Amino acid sequence: MTKANAVIGQSGGPTCAINATLAGVIDALLKSKKISKIFGTVNGINGILSGNLKELNKIFENKENLSLLKNTPSSYLGSCRFKLPEFEENSEIYEDIFASLKKHNIKYFFYIGGNDSMDTVMKLNAYAKKFDKGVTVMGIPKTIDNDLFGTDHCPGFGSAAKYVAASVAEIARDAYCYFVDSVTIVEIMGRNAGFLTAASALARSENLCAPDLIYLPEHQFDVNEFLSDVKDKIKKHKNVIVAVSEGIKNKDGVYVAAASDVLQNDKFGHAQLGGAAKTLENIVKTEIGCKCRSVEINVLQRAASHFASKTDLAESFKIGKTAVSYALRGVSGEMMIFERENGENYKIKISSMDINLIANKEKTLPENFINARGNDVTKAFINYARPLILGEEKIKTKDGIPVHLVLKR
Amino acid sequence: MTKANAVIGQSGGPTCAINATLAGVIDALLKSKKISKIFGTVNGINGILSGNLKELNKIFENKENLSLLKNTPSSYLGSCRFKLPEFEENSEIYEDIFASLKKHNIKYFFYIGGNDSMDTVMKLNAYAKKFDKGVTVMGIPKTIDNDLFGTDHCPGFGSAAKYVAASVAEIARDAYCYFVDSVTIVEIMGRNAGFLTAASALARSENLCAPDLIYLPEHQFDVNEFLSDVKDKIKKHKNVIVAVSEGIKNKDGVYVAAASDVLQNDKFGHAQLGGAAKTLENIVKTEIGCKCRSVEINVLQRAASHFASKTDLAESFKIGKTAVSYALRGVSGEMMIFERENGENYKIKISSMDINLIANKEKTLPENFINARGNDVTKAFINYARPLILGEEKIKTKDGIPVHLVLKR
Repeated sequence: MTKANAVIGQSGGPTCAINATLAGVIDALLKSKKISKIFGTVNGINGILSGNLKELNKIFENKENLSLLKNTPSSYLGSCRFKLPEFEENSEIYEDIFASLKKHNIKYFFYIGGNDSMDTVMKLNAYAKKFDKGVTVMGIPKTIDNDLFGTDHCPGFGSAAKYVAASVAEIARDAYCYFVDSVTIVEIMGRNAGFLTAASALARSENLCAPDLIYLPEHQFDVNEFLSDVKDKIKKHKNVIVAVSEGIKNKDGVYVAAASDVLQNDKFGHAQLGGAAKTLENIVKTEIGCKCRSVEINVLQRAASHFASKTDLAESFKIGKTAVSYALRGVSGEMMIFERENGENYKIKISSMDINLIANKEKTLPENFINARGNDVTKAFINYARPLILGEEKIKTKDGIPVHLVLKR
Repeated sequence: MTKANAVIGQSGGPTCAINATLAGVIDALLKSKKISKIFGTVNGINGILSGNLKELNKIFENKENLSLLKNTPSSYLGSCRFKLPEFEENSEIYEDIFASLKKHNIKYFFYIGGNDSMDTVMKLNAYAKKFDKGVTVMGIPKTIDNDLFGTDHCPGFGSAAKYVAASVAEIARDAYCYFVDSVTIVEIMGRNAGFLTAASALARSENLCAPDLIYLPEHQFDVNEFLSDVKDKIKKHKNVIVAVSEGIKNKDGVYVAAASDVLQNDKFGHAQLGGAAKTLENIVKTEIGCKCRSVEINVLQRAASHFASKTDLAESFKIGKTAVSYALRGVSGEMMIFERENGENYKIKISSMDINLIANKEKTLPENFINARGNDVTKAFINYARPLILGEEKIKTKDGIPVHLVLKR
């Protein structure tokens, strides 16, 4: 049997589980007799184009490195935001990519990423099939936003959700210590999908009612309803905790954040947000006049691997491994997915789905996860999200700080 | 032997170690034969004035609650920002306080707090002595700012420092994933004392150079030097991480944060800060023109007990216990302190110091902890701070979220 080489790339915004998936792919490839060299493409598709491919075999024959990789946040191989043009618009870039793959005898291409990365997977797979390139192209999901279509949930979401929920609980404890009316507004990531903001509800327990209010991008934001909701809650108990998505919009579809920040567009045409909580803080100070603080959890919600979900990391690793077994038996042009099995206990099955059914679609919170007034989530959401945040990892630390694995550039 | 009662209060900004100190005080009081009832005064001195005292004995005879208390962030008893007037200005409030103490047969008063709380300890002790009230008043330090005079370091600082350092490391990993010039500015708490901002340097390891630059309130901030420093670092490696104190000031003594926020004053005359990083973000975008993001770690640096320092919690507990043994043998009007012993290995001794030598003084970073250019810390600071962040606690979780102990109000 002639052995072939494989390449793995990471793309889009980092998470603290994307490296667990990478570890799963590497682990399975190392164990396969069909695979010789395992390459990592540095900064996503850019590494293939520039020839910046790193051989990973030796690094990860050391099992300790594989274990460290699982608990390292962000993208070990670096990431990119690279919009592949349509083949009809620019065939040269496709020729360059496949020339590079051929040069390195690469027959398997694994791309771990979000919506935009799945667009890349779809296009490369179509090209490979059209021109009979003999390259298997597989997508593996990751995103803290949990907005990929076709999968029950995305690797990376559970860890971000756990960190958000734990942080909201801690922020609430902090707010409760003073006996004065106060509003604390916590801003959470998610442009169009409110899953992560909704996950703040997982902070609640028998002795914590925070967050009191949750505003999601799926529900039109009304500032008067918001003020009325907040006033009601202050009356009940002095310290009100509000979770708000960065992506909440008013009835005209204008981002609340836009009131304080000039909107900029990234290469994919997404608005760069930030500032919804700050805008609301100013509104509360003016209209209610009580103490108000806004807290942006910011990039820590996707980078805080020191409190990742054990369930999420285990699933992320496993979906990476399974992607390899699918690819090696000839599956191409698919994204790996989680399917939740019916029954009382949480159980998932890993399979795959045609990438054409997934790419460039965006999943948002289903209606039954949002309450009628649009200021909270439902029990159905809690049941959906709770299993994803369970368990903690034992993190390796040195000198009091988590140890991360770093690729030598 | 006639038994007496004791009261404990918590005051000032919360930390994630202040409850460990409370646990230490409670543990020692429960074990003492001289003590009958242990009261917690709700919201600091306010609870004594309003009669809102909670009996703690039963709650903490359950050892599991004592253990949970150690890992609960914020102030279990609630806090206050209450400036006690001078006795000469308002003797009535002193009479009310001591009447309440007498009514409850309280002979021991423990106050856990920062600078302002030590002012309260000093005044109450002076009054008790002057009028022979027979009440022992003891102060126990806590502050994430580490700015209390007389003690090597403050309970609470180590945990905040650990969280800041780990978060800066994670923020850096996140920033490094894109291969574009970028500046990330992390804002850290500390009005006048730069200890916590300096602690960001503890993020550095053999594979992490972040933070590249550290700006402290002790050193006059020059925006041109800042821009020149940042440009130099970008040339060396594309992604620059800057740690900046909320309290940096320019040559005229004006807060950098003031450029973007209207300054408000709290009851103690401290400026309410926030926004130094945002101001600098805007300056970098305008003057350098590269990608720039500001991250405020915000209240999580004082509330994130899920990643507290084991050393800090153990010391915080022990200083609470020792405060009781000092008080029971007749010491009054003192604040408990840590003294670092000489020698290669970190070792502390707990003792106490006259509160009059401590109250209303503020400790800032000594000169030998700051480099000549004022954009970094020295090895001496690392040696000072490193031992304080060592070790992690095994946190109790339920449903994926840390369990906190809550006082029924």
